[in-house]
Amino acid sequence: DFERAQKDVLPAFGASTEDMEMCARGGIVEYGEKLKQLQQSAASLISQLQQSERTPLLSILLEGPVGSGKTALAATLALRSGFPFVKLLAPTSLVGMGETQKAAVIARVFDDAYKSPLSLIVLDEVERLLEYVRIGPRFSNVVLQTLITCIKKVPKKSKLIVLATTSSLATLESLELLDAFNVTLHVPSLGTIEAIKVLKELGIGNISDIEPVLRTVTKGIPIKKLMLVIEMSLEKGAVLDPERFEKTLQETGLLD
Amino acid sequence: DFERAQKDVLPAFGASTEDMEMCARGGIVEYGEKLKQLQQSAASLISQLQQSERTPLLSILLEGPVGSGKTALAATLALRSGFPFVKLLAPTSLVGMGETQKAAVIARVFDDAYKSPLSLIVLDEVERLLEYVRIGPRFSNVVLQTLITCIKKVPKKSKLIVLATTSSLATLESLELLDAFNVTLHVPSLGTIEAIKVLKELGIGNISDIEPVLRTVTKGIPIKKLMLVIEMSLEKGAVLDPERFEKTLQETGLLD
Amino acid sequence: DFERAQKDVLPAFGASTEDMEMCARGGIVEYGEKLKQLQQSAASLISQLQQSERTPLLSILLEGPVGSGKTALAATLALRSGFPFVKLLAPTSLVGMGETQKAAVIARVFDDAYKSPLSLIVLDEVERLLEYVRIGPRFSNVVLQTLITCIKKVPKKSKLIVLATTSSLATLESLELLDAFNVTLHVPSLGTIEAIKVLKELGIGNISDIEPVLRTVTKGIPIKKLMLVIEMSLEKGAVLDPERFEKTLQETGLLD
Amino acid sequence: DFERAQKDVLPAFGASTEDMEMCARGGIVEYGEKLKQLQQSAASLISQLQQSERTPLLSILLEGPVGSGKTALAATLALRSGFPFVKLLAPTSLVGMGETQKAAVIARVFDDAYKSPLSLIVLDEVERLLEYVRIGPRFSNVVLQTLITCIKKVPKKSKLIVLATTSSLATLESLELLDAFNVTLHVPSLGTIEAIKVLKELGIGNISDIEPVLRTVTKGIPIKKLMLVIEMSLEKGAVLDPERFEKTLQETGLLD
Amino acid sequence: DFERAQKDVLPAFGASTEDMEMCARGGIVEYGEKLKQLQQSAASLISQLQQSERTPLLSILLEGPVGSGKTALAATLALRSGFPFVKLLAPTSLVGMGETQKAAVIARVFDDAYKSPLSLIVLDEVERLLEYVRIGPRFSNVVLQTLITCIKKVPKKSKLIVLATTSSLATLESLELLDAFNVTLHVPSLGTIEAIKVLKELGIGNISDIEPVLRTVTKGIPIKKLMLVIEMSLEKGAVLDPERFEKTLQETGLLD
Amino acid sequence: DFERAQKDVLPAFGASTEDMEMCARGGIVEYGEKLKQLQQSAASLISQLQQSERTPLLSILLEGPVGSGKTALAATLALRSGFPFVKLLAPTSLVGMGETQKAAVIARVFDDAYKSPLSLIVLDEVERLLEYVRIGPRFSNVVLQTLITCIKKVPKKSKLIVLATTSSLATLESLELLDAFNVTLHVPSLGTIEAIKVLKELGIGNISDIEPVLRTVTKGIPIKKLMLVIEMSLEKGAVLDPERFEKTLQETGLLD
Ligand SMILES: Nc1ncnc2c1ncn2[C@@H]1O[C@H](COP(=O)(O)OP(=O)(O)OP(=O)(O)O)[C@@H](O)[C@H]1O
Ligand SMILES: Nc1ncnc2c1ncn2[C@@H]1O[C@H](COP(=O)(O)OP(=O)(O)OP(=O)(O)O)[C@@H](O)[C@H]1O
Ligand SMILES: Nc1ncnc2c1ncn2[C@@H]1O[C@H](COP(=O)(O)OP(=O)(O)OP(=O)(O)O)[C@@H](O)[C@H]1O
Ligand SMILES: Nc1ncnc2c1ncn2[C@@H]1O[C@H](COP(=O)(O)OP(=O)(O)OP(=O)(O)O)[C@@H](O)[C@H]1O
Ligand SMILES: Nc1ncnc2c1ncn2[C@@H]1O[C@H](COP(=O)(O)OP(=O)(O)OP(=O)(O)O)[C@@H](O)[C@H]1O
Ligand SMILES: Nc1ncnc2c1ncn2[C@@H]1O[C@H](COP(=O)(O)OP(=O)(O)OP(=O)(O)O)[C@@H](O)[C@H]1O
Ligand SMILES: [Mg+2]
Ligand SMILES: [Mg+2]
Ligand SMILES: [Mg+2]
Ligand SMILES: [Mg+2]
Ligand SMILES: [Mg+2]
Ligand SMILES: [Mg+2]
Repeated sequence: DFERAQKDVLPAFGASTEDMEMCARGGIVEYGEKLKQLQQSAASLISQLQQSERTPLLSILLEGPVGSGKTALAATLALRSGFPFVKLLAPTSLVGMGETQKAAVIARVFDDAYKSPLSLIVLDEVERLLEYVRIGPRFSNVVLQTLITCIKKVPKKSKLIVLATTSSLATLESLELLDAFNVTLHVPSLGTIEAIKVLKELGIGNISDIEPVLRTVTKGIPIKKLMLVIEMSLEKGAVLDPERFEKTLQETGLLD
Repeated sequence: DFERAQKDVLPAFGASTEDMEMCARGGIVEYGEKLKQLQQSAASLISQLQQSERTPLLSILLEGPVGSGKTALAATLALRSGFPFVKLLAPTSLVGMGETQKAAVIARVFDDAYKSPLSLIVLDEVERLLEYVRIGPRFSNVVLQTLITCIKKVPKKSKLIVLATTSSLATLESLELLDAFNVTLHVPSLGTIEAIKVLKELGIGNISDIEPVLRTVTKGIPIKKLMLVIEMSLEKGAVLDPERFEKTLQETGLLD
Repeated sequence: DFERAQKDVLPAFGASTEDMEMCARGGIVEYGEKLKQLQQSAASLISQLQQSERTPLLSILLEGPVGSGKTALAATLALRSGFPFVKLLAPTSLVGMGETQKAAVIARVFDDAYKSPLSLIVLDEVERLLEYVRIGPRFSNVVLQTLITCIKKVPKKSKLIVLATTSSLATLESLELLDAFNVTLHVPSLGTIEAIKVLKELGIGNISDIEPVLRTVTKGIPIKKLMLVIEMSLEKGAVLDPERFEKTLQETGLLD
Repeated sequence: DFERAQKDVLPAFGASTEDMEMCARGGIVEYGEKLKQLQQSAASLISQLQQSERTPLLSILLEGPVGSGKTALAATLALRSGFPFVKLLAPTSLVGMGETQKAAVIARVFDDAYKSPLSLIVLDEVERLLEYVRIGPRFSNVVLQTLITCIKKVPKKSKLIVLATTSSLATLESLELLDAFNVTLHVPSLGTIEAIKVLKELGIGNISDIEPVLRTVTKGIPIKKLMLVIEMSLEKGAVLDPERFEKTLQETGLLD
Repeated sequence: DFERAQKDVLPAFGASTEDMEMCARGGIVEYGEKLKQLQQSAASLISQLQQSERTPLLSILLEGPVGSGKTALAATLALRSGFPFVKLLAPTSLVGMGETQKAAVIARVFDDAYKSPLSLIVLDEVERLLEYVRIGPRFSNVVLQTLITCIKKVPKKSKLIVLATTSSLATLESLELLDAFNVTLHVPSLGTIEAIKVLKELGIGNISDIEPVLRTVTKGIPIKKLMLVIEMSLEKGAVLDPERFEKTLQETGLLD
Repeated sequence: DFERAQKDVLPAFGASTEDMEMCARGGIVEYGEKLKQLQQSAASLISQLQQSERTPLLSILLEGPVGSGKTALAATLALRSGFPFVKLLAPTSLVGMGETQKAAVIARVFDDAYKSPLSLIVLDEVERLLEYVRIGPRFSNVVLQTLITCIKKVPKKSKLIVLATTSSLATLESLELLDAFNVTLHVPSLGTIEAIKVLKELGIGNISDIEPVLRTVTKGIPIKKLMLVIEMSLEKGAVLDPERFEKTLQETGLLD
């Protein structure tokens, strides 16, 4: 009956949005054109699925280097979608479970989703959901098979968006999990100019003191590391200590 | 007794045809000669078995790239066969089961089939039925041994067609599962001309806007991806947004 | 006491001969000298053991390509031996059992055999009895060890012939199971001339229509595939449809 | 309620500080500039986190050769931090537990930490917490997944510092555990001059007798081995027996 | 008490000698100098141990190609030793047991042996006692560790000879089991001249008919295969059918 | 209380010394300078630890070829130490236990040791305590982790010497177990001159008869093998049979 069905769906709401808000709470700082394009692609796919008459399922993979902001972006997209059912499945939510239990929880979340006319499931750090380790390699085949099956399973009477994140596209490919996704969007790390843009957006007072060091960074700068380096050299009045900024860049591995 | 035997057979009917109809519901769009040949080969084999006096078993493997339409074709062939017993065994039907249980279900379905004079079993995504993963490689040997044995086992008093699909012929060969099949039929992805044929069949209004982009695709186009790209760029009046068409081609990996 | 001993032996009879008759029911079509030699060698070994005063055990391995007729030959030899105890152990008889249970059943069959003065055990598809898969490789060491021990174990008061089949001599060698057999006999696939001999034996009406295609086959033709290709192109009046014959040759992998 | 919460936190205190004091009891002998820099970096990061408004989590990895003093340094930093919650997780604390139990204890310690506004957890010999062995390689994936998840999990209402030690950076990288740490600090072994500095600091009476041998050492000298070699050649009056000093240098593998 | 101790020892007697007699019942045909040397070496070692005052343990490994007569020799030596405790441990005696149970039985037999002042244990086909298979490779480490420990364990108050056989010295070396044996004796296969000597010893009537074929054999001839080939071509009056002799040489793999 | 503590310690005494005396009962024959140096090094380390105020733990590894006398030396050192707690942990003491049980026993012995002010634990054949086999390689990681942790764990209120033996330094290194030891001492096999010294020490009457053969040995001679070869060729009146001496040298693998 309708009332029991409602209850089946409800408990999922609370938990998921609270965790998603944690993931999104750092905010999305605008750093340039690439970010805009990415946000627009995702938004267009989501709205197109909503309007489609024939396609009930869309699976999107956000892939990019460690710390490039995938989780924050996925959480923000989910929260802004306005879908009646949104749910986050992250390694943290499954900590301490055996592989069979993890697989069961995942299958359960998808079953819950099918009960809502419009659902969005975030699968955060897919490779870690299945306990993948490069050496071996090792992973939970039970979770992997469940994920492939759930991501490909066409809902009978409802619409579903799967929004997954990974920092290892190669792993997903070798696991033949990549084939299960309809589309793949790249989340990049930042160049020097984009990093300076971030400093401006954050209202840092002495950007000119920092710029010379930043210019010596030759690798891509993940937004998450950038935020930490800023924090670790922040002084009163939104000013950064240039020496500590440089040192932390080294300690985080961005400068050799 | 007869009545109990009937009951043993009956429950299988309902479930299987409902799932098969889900697999076949997208329809088979005609895209050219290759498709016709394929359909004809399958039909001829099925009817020849029906008439044979000496051969009670035929196992057919449909193999082709991811998304080339194997599942839809197998489901359609099964539904059109008019056999009194048709049954779909797909990864989705076995989700959440351990390998021993999966093997038992498979063996059970074959046992049910032997009770009907004329049966057709679809084994969808064979490599995933046995939880195969390239890295390792890993798979369920219990399920594999059960599949080989069931596919090769000659029914004593009835006739049986096994119709399996795979997107990895090499895997089945390395598992020595390929030897268990009597015949193998290839399901191709589409060339540009066939893709345009599909747009025509679907009544797309502005094919000439889309053609130039389609011509830049150098890979084979799986029908399943083509249908999604169309959906994701579809606008009112069966017109496609060329820009979004191109972008989704990229996001689905068909354009670099 | 004698009566219980009788019962222990009896149940094995029924089952085994029924299954063996299934394996042999397709018949042995005479195709030439090689087949005759093979049959004669086997018969001579069997009769020599029967007469020997000092040798109570003989283990014969029939090896040859997939579909070359090993199972049919072994079953026929067993049925013709006239031994009071004949028994077939095939993958089908063990389906659904765990490896320990399989090992137990095998050991049990040998124990039963020792109770009869003259016994013949057929071990069909030895590599699959032990669940061998090339990739890994994987196999049941429990079953393997049981097989080696049983095949080498000299009966104390009775005589025993073990007749095994395999389509992978290399596998048995790498498993050091080959050493357990006293003699090895090769079961070949057919050349074109032998294939035509088969068509004649079967009374096919239009052999001359088929001959040109058969001559283009460069691989060895397993008798089992040949029988299927014939069945799939058979028309009323023992005539073959040449076009369908060619096509099925392709679909079975005999023609490229 | 508050009282129960207090009790949940309290038992952890006692145990942890006692063990930490064991690890730190040998003291930190000053041997030069590198050590000072290292101590300063760690202190700066700890105090910056304490003051930060936006960053609630910081994970620091101390890596360096076997015996270079990592554990003593981590324990000293923890004890000096003055944080209300400090806790040591070392292989010794987990001896005799199965991998699931180890993972549970680790998760539990982190949960305890979240209850205190300011916490510091020392993870000593990370590669051994997860039972890593180079050959195989083998390790507990359950513990590994728990560690990655716990080290990356952002506390909701509190601040946490994770201070880990390892003597195999390469292992942590291959396990993709390195990515989980925000910053990495190197703990070096000593050169000859630094080793002599240590002898001075310890008030050894006959340094000039020892110096010639020490100068023949070409490898880096881990402080832990140096302390042992001194102990094993120590005579009354803080004098070292040069012959025994040289011999023990050989027996510890520092001299060839 | 003495009576219970007696019982503990007794049951082992019966079983072991009956099985040993089965192994030795084919007899030892004299084929030349090599065999004599071998028998003499073994006898000398056994008697030396009996007389020694300081050495309570001696472990002898008989190694040689498949079928070279190792088991028959070991059984004969054991039966002739006249030791109050002799016991055979062969794969057949352990069939159907799990690896832990096998290890327990082995340890038990050694414990029984320590209760007798003078014991001899035959370990037949050592590599198969531990379920060794070359591919993998696989083996039971539980059994292996038990074997190494038992073979090296010095009895406190009694004397013990361990007489083991293997057809794969390389395997025992790679398992570091070879180091556990004090001495190793080689059991060879036969050359043509030795084979003819065997025919003479057996009183074959038409040796001159057989000689030409025997001379074409270039491999070493294991005595066990030779005995079978003779049996399979034996006719009334101790005469061999030369044609069948040659054919069986081929079927047993001695002639190509 | 004191009495219970006493009991906890006591039972360990009996067992351990009895087993140690078995290991040492063959005696230590003086064969030259190398042996003296080795004994002196070990004695010096043991006495230095006894006197040290700051170092409560010392772990010594005796490594050398198979049969070089490691166990006898370790047992002798332990018995001569006069420590109130001495204990032998050897593969024989752990036979028949599962790996978890072995780990528990080891941990227990160390816990017992901490209760005595001065303890010495012999870990005999370390690689076999952890069931190491080169092929695979296989070993018990549970035992390995327990060993590393126990060997490195600093006692809180007592002093402990760990004296381990191994015949495979490379294995311990690859298991990263070598790092857990503070010092490593080499136990050599003998050269010809040292072997003759042994014959003299044992009062062999006809050394000149034996010398020529001994001089042809080019490998190092492990004392354990030398003792056996002597025993196997010993005749009344402490005279050796030169022929049998040579033969046994071959059969033990010392002469090719
Ligand atoms: N433009 C942005 N895009 C994404 N994150 C941003 C952006 N600007 C600021 N942030 C902040 O940067 C951090 C990105 O961290 P996040 O955990 O999302 O990265 P991630 O790629 O998921 O990392 P990981 O690979 O470790 O999972 C968040 O705290 C987020 O609030
Ligand atoms: N000619 C056609 N052949 C097959 N499918 C077609 C055809 N025309 C349209 N379709 C539609 O294309 C889709 C093909 O998807 P289907 O799942 O059958 O592909 P698949 O090869 O099984 O994919 P996968 O490799 O992922 O299992 C279906 O929705 C089907 O309705
Ligand atoms: N001369 C023949 N020898 C063997 N089989 C023959 C012969 N003539 C006809 N047949 C038929 O050919 C078929 C051979 O199939 P069979 O299962 O015995 O082959 P197989 O080698 O055991 O195959 P597989 O390798 O798949 O186990 C049987 O149906 C048999 O009746
Ligand atoms: N400057 C120093 N830094 C660190 N340890 C020092 C220093 N001076 C003296 N020590 C002493 O040296 C020893 C260092 O041992 P510690 O166990 O910390 O090394 P480690 O690197 O953790 O070793 P391992 O790699 O075996 O875990 C301690 O006893 C410590 O008291
Ligand atoms: N001189 C001989 N030495 C050994 N066996 C002999 C000799 N003469 C005759 N025989 C007979 O040859 C056979 C040798 O077989 P046995 O089982 O002992 O060989 P094996 O080397 O143990 O074989 P496997 O390698 O298969 O274990 C026995 O039947 C034995 O009676
Ligand atoms: N100088 C010596 N050093 C050691 N052992 C000696 C010496 N002289 C005589 N022996 C005797 O030699 C034998 C050495 O055997 P032991 O078991 O100690 O060797 P091991 O190196 O431990 O062998 P394994 O590598 O098999 O464990 C003992 O019986 C011992 O009594
Ligand atoms: Mg993330
Ligand atoms: Mg499909
Ligand atoms: Mg067959
Ligand atoms: Mg440390
Ligand atoms: Mg044998
Ligand atoms: Mg030893």
